[in-house]
Amino acid sequence: MGAGGVIRDGAVVVEGNSIIDVGKSDDVKRRYPRYEKLNASGKVVLPGMVNAHHHAAMSLLRGYADDLPLQEWLEKWIWPLETHIEGYDIYTGALLTAVECVLGGCTTVNTMYHHKPDFNEAKAFAEVGLRGAVGHVCFSWRKDEDKRMLLDLAQNWHGKADGLLRVTVDPHAAYTVDPAYMKELHSVCSDLNERFGNPQLPLFWHTHLAETVDEATKVSQAFHVSVDRGVVEYLDDLGVLNQNVVAAHCVHLSNREIRLLAERGVKVAHNAVSNLKLASGISPVPQLLKAGVTVAIGTDSSCSNNSSDMFEAMKTTALLHKGFYGDPTLMSAETVLRMATTEGARSLLWENAIGSLDIGKRADMVIIDFKKPHLTPVYSEVSHLAYAAKCSDVQTVLVNGELIVDNREVMTINQYRVMEMAEKARERLLTRLQA
Amino acid sequence: MGAGGVIRDGAVVVEGNSIIDVGKSDDVKRRYPRYEKLNASGKVVLPGMVNAHHHAAMSLLRGYADDLPLQEWLEKWIWPLETHIEGYDIYTGALLTAVECVLGGCTTVNTMYHHKPDFNEAKAFAEVGLRGAVGHVCFSWRKDEDKRMLLDLAQNWHGKADGLLRVTVDPHAAYTVDPAYMKELHSVCSDLNERFGNPQLPLFWHTHLAETVDEATKVSQAFHVSVDRGVVEYLDDLGVLNQNVVAAHCVHLSNREIRLLAERGVKVAHNAVSNLKLASGISPVPQLLKAGVTVAIGTDSSCSNNSSDMFEAMKTTALLHKGFYGDPTLMSAETVLRMATTEGARSLLWENAIGSLDIGKRADMVIIDFKKPHLTPVYSEVSHLAYAAKCSDVQTVLVNGELIVDNREVMTINQYRVMEMAEKARERLLTRLQA
Repeated sequence: MGAGGVIRDGAVVVEGNSIIDVGKSDDVKRRYPRYEKLNASGKVVLPGMVNAHHHAAMSLLRGYADDLPLQEWLEKWIWPLETHIEGYDIYTGALLTAVECVLGGCTTVNTMYHHKPDFNEAKAFAEVGLRGAVGHVCFSWRKDEDKRMLLDLAQNWHGKADGLLRVTVDPHAAYTVDPAYMKELHSVCSDLNERFGNPQLPLFWHTHLAETVDEATKVSQAFHVSVDRGVVEYLDDLGVLNQNVVAAHCVHLSNREIRLLAERGVKVAHNAVSNLKLASGISPVPQLLKAGVTVAIGTDSSCSNNSSDMFEAMKTTALLHKGFYGDPTLMSAETVLRMATTEGARSLLWENAIGSLDIGKRADMVIIDFKKPHLTPVYSEVSHLAYAAKCSDVQTVLVNGELIVDNREVMTINQYRVMEMAEKARERLLTRLQA
Repeated sequence: MGAGGVIRDGAVVVEGNSIIDVGKSDDVKRRYPRYEKLNASGKVVLPGMVNAHHHAAMSLLRGYADDLPLQEWLEKWIWPLETHIEGYDIYTGALLTAVECVLGGCTTVNTMYHHKPDFNEAKAFAEVGLRGAVGHVCFSWRKDEDKRMLLDLAQNWHGKADGLLRVTVDPHAAYTVDPAYMKELHSVCSDLNERFGNPQLPLFWHTHLAETVDEATKVSQAFHVSVDRGVVEYLDDLGVLNQNVVAAHCVHLSNREIRLLAERGVKVAHNAVSNLKLASGISPVPQLLKAGVTVAIGTDSSCSNNSSDMFEAMKTTALLHKGFYGDPTLMSAETVLRMATTEGARSLLWENAIGSLDIGKRADMVIIDFKKPHLTPVYSEVSHLAYAAKCSDVQTVLVNGELIVDNREVMTINQYRVMEMAEKARERLLTRLQA
């Protein structure tokens, strides 16, 4: 699938880390007779999917607590266990998520978590060969630490691992980052960008925005500010909203705020599964799209999902808005497939390199085996990709031209070893919690 | 998982088609030292799941048309193609669905479609070894044919295939079956029950009920009757609602109707994915459960889903109601898991034989491989089954004590041959449509 849509009997030519030609298989074979072939006949080749909002390390808490009221879930379960998470745990959880993602056809993940110098999410992604935008999450209560971590992260990882990795500055949310710090983090991002970024690969902001209905009240109570016109307007008044901001959730928005997001060029990462599971509300995605906002798809963490499954996220996105707005024509198969690929790339300011199988882009490609009962018969590949395909149909994955998954085996790391590491991390966390 | 909940390090003893013992692995091994073993260590054994509403043959139309307004979808796409479906196509589509179901850990399917004498859904289920309640769908415009087909179906298939199959009488819906015929089908079911059923295995009704918001209006316009108090009350006035009725959808219900369904013992088959995809509305499942109604989970057909995935159906059921009703404590992992197993069995009046791993029940069992990155780490098996497990994690499936799936290969039929048959059927249908 390129910018031009579906090519039947197509072929993609890869040299080094890039796509150098795309076209009908017969033509391509004539033009490149001596190239090594990866046979995908009877299969579908898709651009690697982009998961636009995740907290990769939190896979360690998958299934630890579910079905609880939000505050109890956070305050009695998730946060107490999280206080015991150290660098090596973060690295372990991110390895597990990275393995899960590539096995599910996702080749780029935008992740927000605590950065630690030696073991961290960036190191994990680099080892697995997953492309990622990796951030450090910032809170008012640890400004100095945040700035040290952001510097460490940008210095060591921005543009590194053959260009697989880039760095983001992640103000947690408007209710945990005071207005002065919010503005400061805007400057911090600009400064880091001048030192470590470049026009092709800028650092950007990744934040949570308008996730729950009481967010404006929380901001107002925390910082004694007026948030009468909503959190988006509040942030815009601070001057921090622009095209370099990826805002996760954007559930509770006024019409004015929808227009504002479009005007400022803010990118939205929509998390249908997590929003439903936590009962956060229903994001007005059809209205955002209509207003011209770039909306990508995220899974959110494995605490609130509980999986990193982008096929499930696509289908749930389509289903949710059809069902909630009472219109089966909303959010078509093609729309959600574009959100999971091209729009995902655009949301991470990475459309120059990924998101479609076009000449000059990096070779982030997924080969999907369509010879499955649940993908039979085939009237429309696009319909099957959105509504019927599963992670387990992903057979082969290339990232940056490298073979990362071959016949469902991860080539870059021993996935069974990663699973053992994650089980041990779970035991460590529970032991520390009980100590 | 038995009636008593999760057993860790457990074992199940099967003799013939039945479970003869369940307990801790060490105890069981002592009691049955010479029994052949199927090793499931590190795995989870689940009762086979029950899909409470399907149209198995319609897998042939999977992905044929999506994202269209309901009437256009039915009138311009689905129905025109369906008029060309013949017995062998029905058999082929049902084979495909049966293979998909067993590979996904579902061992019992309640299916409604057109019965034909020689090739039909019952024959397909019997060949794959899938347990099923198989019906013939009835319409006012073909009463004589319906009655011939119901007789053929009951005579040849009720209680057949080693007791795997039972037969249902399926009035399509209140707007396509006139009131007199509705009452007549009630008697037809009783008559067939006297001839072919028995108290352990009665025939029952399977119908669509209150699926769309305009259903009452459609009934009233079609048959010039008053349906002011809703379709459920209308059917109850006809005297056809009782504990032998499985009603699919039940989306649009008054509080009185919810109480009425509980009083009459009507079983509800909830289809979250289909209801969302077709934008039918949101069924008040939490209220139905509170009222004491047996609510099971169905996928609906592969036209409106587009898959027979019961793991997806469980998760979507949990997510939908949490999200729509704004309460994350609704529809817990355990609740949806019970709906997909024990409540599914109960909905099909089959709880004496299936739905849990208890002594005396048929050995319908699914072994799930938990050694997967997306099921790591494990805090709660129940959480993973509801929120993280996938069809592809199903490794081994027994139905009636027979090995149907072994290490993801279907043992009873060549699944690749079935896929070829389904592709050929698709070509035939499109050729007939264009002729």
